[in-house]
Amino acid sequence: MRRVRIALLGCGHVGSGLVRLLARSRARLAASHGVTFELASVLVRDGERRREGVDPALVTTRVEDALSAAGDVVVELLGGIEPAWTLVRRALARGLPTVTANKALLAGHGRELFAAARGTPLGFEASVCGGVPIVRALRGGLAGDRVRSVTGVLNGTCNFVLTRMERDGTPFAEALRAAQEAGFAEADPALDIGGWDAAQKLVVLAALAFGEWVPLSGVRVRGIEDVTLERLARARERGRALRLVAAAERRGRRLELWVEPREVPADHPLAMVSREENAVLVRGDDVGELLFRGRGAGARPTATAVLADLCDVMRGAGEEAALRPAPALVAC
Amino acid sequence: MRRVRIALLGCGHVGSGLVRLLARSRARLAASHGVTFELASVLVRDGERRREGVDPALVTTRVEDALSAAGDVVVELLGGIEPAWTLVRRALARGLPTVTANKALLAGHGRELFAAARGTPLGFEASVCGGVPIVRALRGGLAGDRVRSVTGVLNGTCNFVLTRMERDGTPFAEALRAAQEAGFAEADPALDIGGWDAAQKLVVLAALAFGEWVPLSGVRVRGIEDVTLERLARARERGRALRLVAAAERRGRRLELWVEPREVPADHPLAMVSREENAVLVRGDDVGELLFRGRGAGARPTATAVLADLCDVMRGAGEEAALRPAPALVAC
Repeated sequence: MRRVRIALLGCGHVGSGLVRLLARSRARLAASHGVTFELASVLVRDGERRREGVDPALVTTRVEDALSAAGDVVVELLGGIEPAWTLVRRALARGLPTVTANKALLAGHGRELFAAARGTPLGFEASVCGGVPIVRALRGGLAGDRVRSVTGVLNGTCNFVLTRMERDGTPFAEALRAAQEAGFAEADPALDIGGWDAAQKLVVLAALAFGEWVPLSGVRVRGIEDVTLERLARARERGRALRLVAAAERRGRRLELWVEPREVPADHPLAMVSREENAVLVRGDDVGELLFRGRGAGARPTATAVLADLCDVMRGAGEEAALRPAPALVAC
Repeated sequence: MRRVRIALLGCGHVGSGLVRLLARSRARLAASHGVTFELASVLVRDGERRREGVDPALVTTRVEDALSAAGDVVVELLGGIEPAWTLVRRALARGLPTVTANKALLAGHGRELFAAARGTPLGFEASVCGGVPIVRALRGGLAGDRVRSVTGVLNGTCNFVLTRMERDGTPFAEALRAAQEAGFAEADPALDIGGWDAAQKLVVLAALAFGEWVPLSGVRVRGIEDVTLERLARARERGRALRLVAAAERRGRRLELWVEPREVPADHPLAMVSREENAVLVRGDDVGELLFRGRGAGARPTATAVLADLCDVMRGAGEEAALRPAPALVAC
């Protein structure tokens, strides 16, 4: 039995979900993977709060102590750029396998992050679309094809708000409040509503699909702030649904990335995406159109993606390739 | 640049598709993966037929010669049990990474095959659902969760026939002929129509999801032979669609596998699967319901899955883990 100690950075919504999932999965993972995960240390903002399943002796609020315990792997769930970026860089420099759910970090520093990870396993399945294994699909499964476009509904909060408005006639502000109460929304909901969360995820997907890190400033972004019940009703009358669509597509030699509210036919795969679900359509030269759909937000689905990466990291020699950046990314 | 020589076993529909895809992908794979694939030898049934892109000097009809050339990797696209099983076993015994699209072999000899592969990379993405990367999803992406059920439309021919009957009123025999002409159908269409092709794929998915190889004889199988235009019309009147549904689900401590024509509501994800598409719904404790949908049959999508496995096999040290059987399977 292999004992793996986790230096956990951040223990908010997803972090607490991971702690619970690890406890619940102990017997299963021991039987299937021959591994037990334990916490080595837990970096938090508020050291006073009690956290179920977390030994208070492991908790620290000092960033400089976050990697000092004997962790075998780092799980970064802080979100945002700092101190996440400093800590992840330090972990990778020490050769510590690292799992992150941090889309802002990837979108902001993806190229440097991948350069820093060279040779060290880096997992980031949880950074895009929560429980939907789209990162794996693009990293490995689609190596056999040339991707033409990636289109999706990538923000659970916006989709929750839009489908609540559309189906129940709930006003915007009230639908947003419901999303916040359900725990889908970002700490700053403007990131969701303004389309920036979707844009960050799109940058990650585009890097995997096309091997290019497009800066966030290169994404055309419009949010759902101005969407009214009237607009949704008019769309419905025409047999269409409104979704916050994010897309990356080749246009000749250029790569174009955009996020905006778009009407789609009612029987379009993206129209079927309801509440906090996410969906991604990948179109390849030979494979045609692939659809991936599932829960894109929430502590439980996202924690499963973190744990899947943790399992990959711990597969001995295999850890490298399983989590190594796609070759296209290494090359660029 | 790494030069990888393929011992190709079988050059029918999918094999020819792979040869064309390799030619088309040469520049892309050289740039992204630093690899060029070449044919070392090609085992075929009919040595007289000319095959585009295949040097006749590499072609053999002798099974005993199929692995004698200096191949770095074996791609088995023969289908059926023999001589595929003998050749794959021999390849694995020699430590040759092997990629197979052979669902019959996996369903019939999965446990022994995985035992034989121990330590040698074995890829089989193309064995289930053509271009849909469901094998990868279940092998790696869902390690973080406990799977409750796997449900899908796994046979493109049956789905093609059912949706043609349903939408155009095409009689059964004529719809089947169209599927055969389009190249989706198995050599023996009774395998498709009788539900056995779907059952074989289901056995593979269940092994990945639950770590148990259920023998084909343990799957309750009903095909679509008796489906009439009248039955489809009655279903449509009730707002339902008929699909050949395959499912593996836990019932207490038992694992239940079945394939049968079932009515699903018109807005159910499986009702949206049309023509030769496949779809798989995976339900997990924490992740909820995930949907994977795409082209499940046809030479081009299936060839992309073979090539994705080939790329994985060639990722140096990583090849082992990337293609190693899921830990649950190693354990069982």
